[in-house]
Parts: sequence; structure tokens; C-alpha cells
Amino acid sequence: MEMLTRRGFFWQSFEIYGGISGFFDYGPLGNVLRRKIEDIWRKHFVTMEKAVEIDTPTVCIEDVFVASGHVSHFTDVAIECEKCGKVFRADHYIKEVLGIEIDSSVETIGEIIESYDLKCECGGKFRLFHFNLMFSTKIGPGKGKRGYLRPETAQGIFIDFKRLLEFCRQKLPFGIAQIGRAYRNEISPRQGVIRLREFNQAELEYFVNPKDKFHPNFRKYEDVVVRLLDKRERLHELTLKKAVDEGVICHELMAYFIGKTREFLIEVGIDEGRLRFRQHRDDERAHYAIDCWDAEVLTSYGWIEVVGIADRTDYDLKKHAEHSGEDLRVFVQYEEPLKVKRRKIIPNMRKLGPAYRDKAKVISERLSEVEVDGEVEFVVVNVEGEEIEIPREFFEIKEVEEEIHGEKIFPHVIEPSFGLDRITYAVLEHCFDKDFVDGEERRVLRLRRWIAPIPVAVLPLLSREPFTSKAKIIAEMLRRDGIYTDYDDSGSIGRRYRRFDEIGTPFCITVDHQTFEDETVTVRDRDTTRQIRVKVDELSSVLRELLESERDITEFGEIFRD
Amino acid sequence: MEMLTRRGFFWQSFEIYGGISGFFDYGPLGNVLRRKIEDIWRKHFVTMEKAVEIDTPTVCIEDVFVASGHVSHFTDVAIECEKCGKVFRADHYIKEVLGIEIDSSVETIGEIIESYDLKCECGGKFRLFHFNLMFSTKIGPGKGKRGYLRPETAQGIFIDFKRLLEFCRQKLPFGIAQIGRAYRNEISPRQGVIRLREFNQAELEYFVNPKDKFHPNFRKYEDVVVRLLDKRERLHELTLKKAVDEGVICHELMAYFIGKTREFLIEVGIDEGRLRFRQHRDDERAHYAIDCWDAEVLTSYGWIEVVGIADRTDYDLKKHAEHSGEDLRVFVQYEEPLKVKRRKIIPNMRKLGPAYRDKAKVISERLSEVEVDGEVEFVVVNVEGEEIEIPREFFEIKEVEEEIHGEKIFPHVIEPSFGLDRITYAVLEHCFDKDFVDGEERRVLRLRRWIAPIPVAVLPLLSREPFTSKAKIIAEMLRRDGIYTDYDDSGSIGRRYRRFDEIGTPFCITVDHQTFEDETVTVRDRDTTRQIRVKVDELSSVLRELLESERDITEFGEIFRD
Repeated sequence: MEMLTRRGFFWQSFEIYGGISGFFDYGPLGNVLRRKIEDIWRKHFVTMEKAVEIDTPTVCIEDVFVASGHVSHFTDVAIECEKCGKVFRADHYIKEVLGIEIDSSVETIGEIIESYDLKCECGGKFRLFHFNLMFSTKIGPGKGKRGYLRPETAQGIFIDFKRLLEFCRQKLPFGIAQIGRAYRNEISPRQGVIRLREFNQAELEYFVNPKDKFHPNFRKYEDVVVRLLDKRERLHELTLKKAVDEGVICHELMAYFIGKTREFLIEVGIDEGRLRFRQHRDDERAHYAIDCWDAEVLTSYGWIEVVGIADRTDYDLKKHAEHSGEDLRVFVQYEEPLKVKRRKIIPNMRKLGPAYRDKAKVISERLSEVEVDGEVEFVVVNVEGEEIEIPREFFEIKEVEEEIHGEKIFPHVIEPSFGLDRITYAVLEHCFDKDFVDGEERRVLRLRRWIAPIPVAVLPLLSREPFTSKAKIIAEMLRRDGIYTDYDDSGSIGRRYRRFDEIGTPFCITVDHQTFEDETVTVRDRDTTRQIRVKVDELSSVLRELLESERDITEFGEIFRD
Repeated sequence: MEMLTRRGFFWQSFEIYGGISGFFDYGPLGNVLRRKIEDIWRKHFVTMEKAVEIDTPTVCIEDVFVASGHVSHFTDVAIECEKCGKVFRADHYIKEVLGIEIDSSVETIGEIIESYDLKCECGGKFRLFHFNLMFSTKIGPGKGKRGYLRPETAQGIFIDFKRLLEFCRQKLPFGIAQIGRAYRNEISPRQGVIRLREFNQAELEYFVNPKDKFHPNFRKYEDVVVRLLDKRERLHELTLKKAVDEGVICHELMAYFIGKTREFLIEVGIDEGRLRFRQHRDDERAHYAIDCWDAEVLTSYGWIEVVGIADRTDYDLKKHAEHSGEDLRVFVQYEEPLKVKRRKIIPNMRKLGPAYRDKAKVISERLSEVEVDGEVEFVVVNVEGEEIEIPREFFEIKEVEEEIHGEKIFPHVIEPSFGLDRITYAVLEHCFDKDFVDGEERRVLRLRRWIAPIPVAVLPLLSREPFTSKAKIIAEMLRRDGIYTDYDDSGSIGRRYRRFDEIGTPFCITVDHQTFEDETVTVRDRDTTRQIRVKVDELSSVLRELLESERDITEFGEIFRD
């Protein structure tokens, strides 16, 4: 952490005012790293899924979260000392003080406090209460309107469902993504960047027909072997296809997103050996999900959740339809029209006319709408508030066959939800390494080449002319060719190499004596510290190929020793 | 606006719950458009300025805004009806009801209300108050800590100044950028996307030596002619160099950023004929700035501010240094060391030792620190709280010459601050056009090619095989080559062209009969509706060249008529 702060990845927010837990700043390198991870996410979960991305406000009106259930359910149980006023998150406090892992229902906690006679340090008694984890605010002056900072980006998608359905031409399945800030007013966050009150989420809401939880590209991942810890804590190592066939994973679509998530995490630099998928136990699952698998990675904080993949069913759309009065269903066409037999009433106008006069037409219309199961003696219709009993003689009953082409349904939604801050942090931990170079210990950040914040640095061997001018010209050339390049001439060349090793720069270019003889420079590989010589006018294209792949530098030139 | 909503650019947030003013959602096309504008901003104001970008929380603790002055100054004067409780922004209300433009001080408004005997519709009397425009919230449970949603991204940069200075190797000038959400709890916003309560900002804070408000690349813009409306409402059309020389613009650095802002706005599609720079009047300038120029663009809402370029001097750093107790100054080296003559005291140890014994050493140290102006008879030194008078015989006074290499100063900051939402909206307005094609009126969005959300669409001439399959293959090929491509086979080809014209797609590719004879397709230019034929295997490279430039399609093939 100290190195990450010193090198400009991130640091605690509001440092000069003493800081406050749960908030972190991205420094220049951390910001680039997270944005690169975001872009790779967008490639996988938006472009390749043919999904679309939207961007909705972080401040939302209360109605949204009343409907979604967050106003009533998005809470932690807190205990407050009646004497000194200190507040703790109950389950964390009990774990710390008594070493007991508990589920976090108020009943359990109340019992434990009573049976262990738990009291505050100051001697005060504890009061239990539900603490809502949404930040609340007021929109507008005067009484205003209550608003909350969104606890997830997903709700912005659900409430826009009707517009998005139209944009996607009314056809399931389709995916809608959102990347942005979300907030959780934690009671007392203590795990550095791992438990943030303001964080960055990337979520995909993939809407499907509930009968159709498949994905056309599942083949791509079906033979991939994953580590699965199911809700009964049994560990499985098997292919995704087998996991579906054996019922470990509930359906193909869930398995597809597990495979895709794994692929994404490895591409940004998560170590596969420290990755597993864990199914939520029944008592920990969010109120809106019927099944949920977390991608967890092993870090110095233990196993931490970095992705949650939930089957939220039609929970959200139904709730919002109910609360808003809007029809949020989709018309789904049957593969073949259904033929349905019905017993319908056929009014006999010739008899109705004389008997009911000016009401006959309305009665006839009402009668046509009526369906009957078997035989009846009369039918009651409602004409402008008046119930009229129509005897059997005024109509026929006929059996008809009708074609039904489809029906309106609430789609289900599968949601892969990514915590970008935790992923960024875990990547840094997994890529951090130490080794020995020339008998000295070296700290090196083995970031995958395409996410390194500074992919290339140009260094003059000596910090004087003509080395410095030449190095600046080469750095400028690389920038013009679209390669983000740093330049550094401060300190010995060895110290500079170490500095760039520490921030994960994959390639250092050195301008040395030979450069002035044959227009070549050395390219040094961060991981092996090997160097090759490359002609200046081939440098951009060599670097581009190296940065997009994981090819060895020795493919581009012979090993050179300084 | 109706078209922008229907086509998926943006719409009012929380529509299904009745909406609330001041919040908008970016639909799929609007989101891509704004992000492309963001990327171009990043290219101009981060990469090309060799600045770095950070990302800090939107929720900030109160200390930050007490220091910055936002807690006391970031207010609008509101009037509230004492009877019905309705609240209005005072200046807007007076303009609407009385047609008077006023400055917004409480005194003026109070006088007007009295002299015109202004009352609410309901007959109630108005009460005046200052309404703070920051959204406030509470961090943590219990009493918690007061927090505000940031009204600008800039403060996150100022409070990180010390860390950033270190990252930038302690050397002025340097630029720090931030792109992200900012918030303003408007009293009653009514101008659609123009006045938002939650908006997207891109800000650069460019820190300089106050004596050095120049920029090495000013030459690039010095001959550019700009339209300037100064604070006395005089209009100037002159080159930036002349504007600086004649004192219309306060310094070169301000002129540099005006030139750069103009270049950026034109690149994203603002019409130069509807762009001007307006200097803030003394009574409208923010509390932290000594000079400010807005870039204003003409839209259906009149002239609206889209960029503000302010010289904030050292206001913010000084305030934060004062409130936090941190030293936020920079050591600035003089070009040549200053030689300074001083009269210093040289203790005479041989005499001090015997006279003061064990205190002699401390006394000698203290004496060495003392500077004197002329001749003295004694000097008083403080030794562990005790004041001791040391007579003249125990020391010499010598004149010495010392070199001073530099001094610590508070840098000044020039801040170009961009409202990305307004720019996105203005670009759409400026690019919207109507013309006649084949005798029919056509609506067309003449977005510059590189910011079009959907740059290319592949359309089968007829919506059936083999046209559809072939078109899908070509669309897939373009996507693989990194060109974002849509596919559409619904409706007549003419209707599809119109649809893509309306969302600004620069090029439509059509698969027609001839495609199956010679492996060519037509490329249709949105603006001229001209078409050329291009070989399928040259399509990606032709499109790439077209999309990066504004070259005419006829450079790539002969005009083809269907």
C-alpha cells in the first residue's frame, strides 16, 4: 500500500483534513489503470455482447428505491452505545469481540448481546437498530424531495426498461450496461480500498425470456475448467458444461457469464490460481436474487468478492411495474402460433333488438366478450353500471378455434456486476512480485502489457547532451505514433529501471553511445530484464506488436548486453 | 428534443415515476457521443498538455468546502411564500414576473419585492433566504459527519496538491485534470438538459509560477481570430496575440486556453459562427477568480455557457493551507541565485565557556541564529524558557554575503472547466439540419465523422436471403477490424437511410445485386447522399481513412447510381 501511494496509484481521500475511512483517490497511475480495465470490460460485456451502454444519475428520487426494496431491505444491523453514542456494525463487532461468525438478523444479535451480556467499553448498554446503507439527501429547496445516492447502477437500467426495449426493437434477449459510481454508507469501513463508501461499478443487465436461459456463444466456454464452491461449501473443479449438466450451476446462461467473467479477469491480470467462484448461501443472498455466484480472488485481505453474477429473475421489473403503473412486459412471439379452443357466445340480434331496444347493441357487444366453460342458463352483463341478466334464448354458444401468436411476459434478468476498484486493487496485488537482479532484490509490478499505465519510457543512458535531446525526440516520435510514453533523465540508469519496474512499465528504451553510431536503441523487457537493439525507425511498430501480445522480445532482435 | 429522445440520445430521468427536473439519462447513442467528446477532451487537455488525470470522490467531507468558501458563498437567493410554501429562485422569478434583469444580491431583491409589492399567486408574502446549492448528506451512522456532493471536480485536485506536486517532481508548471460528476441543487431548473442538478465536468487545473503566465505553445494559436465580448460588453474580433497585446485578455496563458478551447469545440462539432468568448462582469465572477472568460454557444436557449476559463490565482491553495495547516507551497528556483548581505553574530567561545559553563554551547548556537541590523550593545537569547542578556563582549558582528537559490511560493492556477452535457447538447443542435433529397424533406445530423455514435451501418438492399447473410458477414468483418458497425434489415432501404441520417451515421454500406457479381458494395455519404462502389476487401481501410478525416468519398471511387 505504501508503494501504491508513493508511486501515485491511490491514496486516502481528504488526507490533509485527516481523511475519513471508505473514500480513496485515484492518483495519475491508478486512474489510467482503472480506466483501462473499464475499457476491457466494455469490450467484453458491451461490444462483444452487442449490448448497449447508458448513463443515468447517481442521485435518484425515493420512489425508485421504495419499489426496488432498498428503502426497506438495504440495511445492516447496527449497535449503538446508549451512553457514549458509539456505533458499530453488529456482526463485525461480535466477530471481533467474541470471535463468532453470525448471520446478521436482529433476533440472533439480540440473543447474543443478552446471553454474553455485551456492553460498550465505556460500560454503556447497546441499542440495536437497522441502519439503511443508502446516503440520503434532499433535492430542491424548502421541503424538497427525498433523494438517495444509488447503491447500484442497475436500477437506472430497470426504470428505463421501456425506452430501452424500444431502442432494442422489442426483441429479447438484449443487454444493457452501465459503468459508474455507486454508494454504500458503511457503518465503519476498515479494509482500505476493499470496503469503500463510494465505488465504481460496471454492470450488465441481460434480459431474457425466462424459458430461454441459454447463450448462443456458450460453446466458447463449455470446456473451461473452473473452481466452484457451492452453497453447501462443496468444492468442484469441473468444466462449465459438466457443472450445468450436474446441476451445480443452475443454467447455461449463468455458466456462460461465469466463463466470460473468468476470461475478463485473467485478461486484466488476475492470477487464475487465486480465483474461484462461490455460490451465495440461502441466508446471504440479496432480496432480489434466486441464485448468485461471486467471483472471489485471494488477496492479503483473504478471499474477497470482486464480481457478483445474480439471477434477479423478474423481481425488479415487476416491482417497478407495480409501483409506477407502467406495463414493463415484453411481447414474446411463440415459435408456432398456439391453437386454442374456446366456447364463445354468439348474440342473436334478431331477438335482442325487439326485447332490449336501444340497449340491444351494447348488450350484444358485451355478450361477445364473454367466454363460458360449459352450458349456462343465463349471462349477466354490465351496461353502464346496470347488471342485466340475459336469458339463454338470446344467444348461441359456439366452440371456436383461435390462433394465439404470443404473450406478454416479464423478462428475467441475469446480472454480472463488477466492482472495478477491488479488481484494480487485486490486479496490483497479484502482479506485485520480488526477484533478484544482479544480486539485488528488485520490486516489480508484472502488469499485463496492455493495462500498464505507462507502457513505454525513454531514458537517456547519461543525463546530459546529446543523450537527453535524442531521447526526447524519440519519446515525442512514439507519442505521435499513439504510444503513451514517459521520459526520465533523473538519477542513474539502474535507479530509473527500478522505478519503472515498480510501476509496471513493460518496456524501457535506452539511448546510449551506439545510438549515435547506427540509429538503434535498446529495448529492455521489465520481466526478464533482457535487452535487444532495435532500429529507431522500426521502434513504434515493434513496440505496438509487443504491447498487444505477450511475445518475447527476443523475437524482435538478438539479446544485447550493455 | 423529441427526436433526441426517440432515437436514444437522452431523456428525462425517472420518467415512469413522473420525472423530476434537473436530471437526464443518456441513452445508448447519447452515452457514446458524450464519451467520445470526453476522449477528445482528454487528448487535448491531458495528453497534449502532458498533464495527468486523477479521480476523486463525489462525496466530500465538509472541511473541504468550508475552506474553499462554498459553504458560505455557493448560494442563490430564494424567495419562499410564507403561506403556501412555494420556493422560487429570486432573480428568475423577478425576471419572469417583472421582466427585470437584476444582480442577485439580497439587498436588491429585497428592495424590488418591497417597491413592487410582490406577492405569491396565493396571496402569501415572500420571505428571502440564501439557499446553498450543494446537496448535503451524512456520512456514517449516528451523528455521522456532514458531507456534500462536490459542486466542481476542482477541489479534489487542490486538496491533493501536495501528493501531485511530488508526482510531478516538484516542478512548475504542471496540469492536473479530472473528469467526472458534479452537482448543483438548483432551486427550480427549467431548461431541460441545459440546467442540470447532476452534470459531467472536465476540468484542468494548470499550476504556474505567478510571474510566468505564458505557455510554450502559444504560437500555435496567436494568429487565430476570435470573437471576444469583454466585461464592458464591447465586442472585439481580433487575433489572440493582439488581444493580449491590447490588454483585452489579461495574459498569454488565458489567451492560450481560449485558443485551445476553440480548437477543441470545433473538433467536436460546434459551429464556429455560433461561438464567442465572453468575459465575466465584475459582479458575476465567482468568489475565487480574478478573471474569467466563458465560451458561449448560440442554441435555441440563446447564448449558453459551455466552458469557463478562470484565473483562480492562489485563492484555493492558500485557503486549504490555512484550514489544514499543511504547507502547500512550491519551491521555485531563481534563474540566478540572489546574493544577499547580512550582518551575522559570531559567538566568541573562548569567552562564553568560562562565563556560562554548561549553558555556553546552547547560548552560542542561539547567538549564531540571530541577525542584526546595525550595531548593538547586547543580545537576548532564550535558553529553555529563560531569557538571558548576552553583553557585546561575547560576540563579534560580521557582514556576510549569502546566496539564496529560490523561494517557496503559492502557485497560481488557470482553470479551463468544461460542461460536457451542454457541449454534447449544443453539438447535436449545431449539427442538426434539414434538406431536400429526391424532393422530400430529410432530417440529418451532420455530426463530425469521428464523434458519430454509430459510424457505419451495413444494410442489405432487400430484407431477404442472400442479401441479409452477406450483409451480416460484412458487418462482422468491419467489427473485427475495430469499426463499430450496426446492421439493419427492417423496412425499405430509403427508410433505413433516413433513420441513419437522423442519428448522424456518416456511412451506410449497402449489399445489392452487384455485390454477388463482383464482391463490391456501395458506400453512401450521409451529407451528400452520394454513393461509390468499393471492393469488400478494401472496405475497412477505406472507411478508416474516411472516418479519421473529412475527405470526400469520391476520392475513393467513382460516383455510382443505383
